[in-house]
Amino acid sequence: MKAVVLEKGKIRFKDIPQPSPSENEALVKVLKAGICRTDLELVKGYMGFEGVLGHEFVGQVIQAPKKSWWGKRVVGEINISCGECDLCRSGFPGHCLTRTVLGIQNKDGAFAEFLTLPVENLHLLPSNISDIEGVFIEPLAAALEILEQVPLGRKDSVLVLGDGKLGLLAAQVMKSRTDEVYCRGKHERKLEILKKRNIQTTLSGEKLEKKFDIVVEATGEEKGIEEALLRVNPKGKVVLKSTFKQKASVDISKIVVDEIQLIGSRCGPFPKAIHALKTKWVEVEAMVHADFPLDRVEEAFTLAQKLDVIKVLLTP
Amino acid sequence: MKAVVLEKGKIRFKDIPQPSPSENEALVKVLKAGICRTDLELVKGYMGFEGVLGHEFVGQVIQAPKKSWWGKRVVGEINISCGECDLCRSGFPGHCLTRTVLGIQNKDGAFAEFLTLPVENLHLLPSNISDIEGVFIEPLAAALEILEQVPLGRKDSVLVLGDGKLGLLAAQVMKSRTDEVYCRGKHERKLEILKKRNIQTTLSGEKLEKKFDIVVEATGEEKGIEEALLRVNPKGKVVLKSTFKQKASVDISKIVVDEIQLIGSRCGPFPKAIHALKTKWVEVEAMVHADFPLDRVEEAFTLAQKLDVIKVLLTP
Repeated sequence: MKAVVLEKGKIRFKDIPQPSPSENEALVKVLKAGICRTDLELVKGYMGFEGVLGHEFVGQVIQAPKKSWWGKRVVGEINISCGECDLCRSGFPGHCLTRTVLGIQNKDGAFAEFLTLPVENLHLLPSNISDIEGVFIEPLAAALEILEQVPLGRKDSVLVLGDGKLGLLAAQVMKSRTDEVYCRGKHERKLEILKKRNIQTTLSGEKLEKKFDIVVEATGEEKGIEEALLRVNPKGKVVLKSTFKQKASVDISKIVVDEIQLIGSRCGPFPKAIHALKTKWVEVEAMVHADFPLDRVEEAFTLAQKLDVIKVLLTP
Repeated sequence: MKAVVLEKGKIRFKDIPQPSPSENEALVKVLKAGICRTDLELVKGYMGFEGVLGHEFVGQVIQAPKKSWWGKRVVGEINISCGECDLCRSGFPGHCLTRTVLGIQNKDGAFAEFLTLPVENLHLLPSNISDIEGVFIEPLAAALEILEQVPLGRKDSVLVLGDGKLGLLAAQVMKSRTDEVYCRGKHERKLEILKKRNIQTTLSGEKLEKKFDIVVEATGEEKGIEEALLRVNPKGKVVLKSTFKQKASVDISKIVVDEIQLIGSRCGPFPKAIHALKTKWVEVEAMVHADFPLDRVEEAFTLAQKLDVIKVLLTP
């Protein structure tokens, strides 16, 4: 099959054998996939991953242990857990110590004609969610994870740093729970999507005197941490969403003296993300910039790296 | 009066005018004071403080608006707040944006014959708590702050990093709520205090395979953060207690991927600390290494900087 493989820091479009599902897995034909900032970091060496890239996708089940799955349009949770370790038993299978992660850790991903995933990772995609929208389920679940971790009152003020995909999704998700949400980013065109939803926007570099109860750091850059600590109230919370290869320089004394909480936040609840898209309370299609066939992946990655581009899709 | 003044990065024993209490303040004669690691950091330039050092003390009220305070033996909360800003009104006076802090920020401290503090900052010291024990009320309150911030179940495993005063206090405090508490430090002699209280100890450098639900970072060193992140379980919590001048290099991706929470923790509840010492469930006197008269402050600071010394006292 055709696939996009990361090898020695380079992405290559090539022919590789079609994967065979193991006993509890489904074989899924990929209909649409999305390039995520994490993919760009993986190319830079983050996680030391080699193999088929891609973890945001919509697909169709070709083969599965139960026939009821056959032909169904699905999205898939990306963490494949053992089900038996302490973390799995504690209800945190996404943190399973021996997990593999689709397109990120020891498991070939979605930039290919086919992928395999355990059936328990799959979720049916309702018919009123398009393939393009469905690609956003995984990052939208990651944005919804913030609400699982941070109790949010109607009067809490929120600042989202970063106007990438995750920033725009997080701002919309936070707005569902509190009145005062700001998003600070670099691109007027991206922030425009939020203005239509009554979310206040501010351009990086613009003066911003206000401090916030909760700051979501989704810039994807090391210096986002510093700005988050600058913008958060004493006793406030900073939700960390960016992953990158290098370490960041952090003012620990500021965290201690102001008793700030830093909360690492990763994958989230798929069912809630599906519900949010089904009921159309989150806008995602406006984020899509282009849709490339798989063999034009290099072009797609070059475009995805551009700062004013939010989401580039790949269609096998 | 005699006082220890930090000026241009040097501590000096000198004669300065006795402070005059303002309208709502008490004049307190200092009976005993303790040198804290924060004092050593202040000398290095942390906070940019200049003035009389010292924030751990027991004193006797000489003068106060209400006569009922006269002659009473007291300890004092170190944050002096405005009482009117948003943070004061929200119940976080310790985070008041215009606060001064005894011996740390724009307020002369306790290494002197006299100090002044608002009466509302004072707490009566019960007669069965000695002057020496009383000096530990402020740091013990800081250790108890962890329990205010982190809900702790009987089955949660805890690792305290650092066997300085705060580490030893934190380990004892955590042990009151959960069975499994480890303290990892550099000095067998210091850890001995905990062994007697059924707290498990481990020397830095010794192999430690286990990971923990909660890690308290109290090493006072930048590299403590790295070890804390190494030792904490996914979905675990790291309580940050160390303040130092420089920034620390932090693996943000680890925090995000493992959804770890970093919780800055500073000053805590004095009444609970007083209760703990009154009922003798925390051991503090064994930590005292020496007690110097104020004019031998340089000797005292030199000793306090030694790694195997926990607590050095000053008596005006």
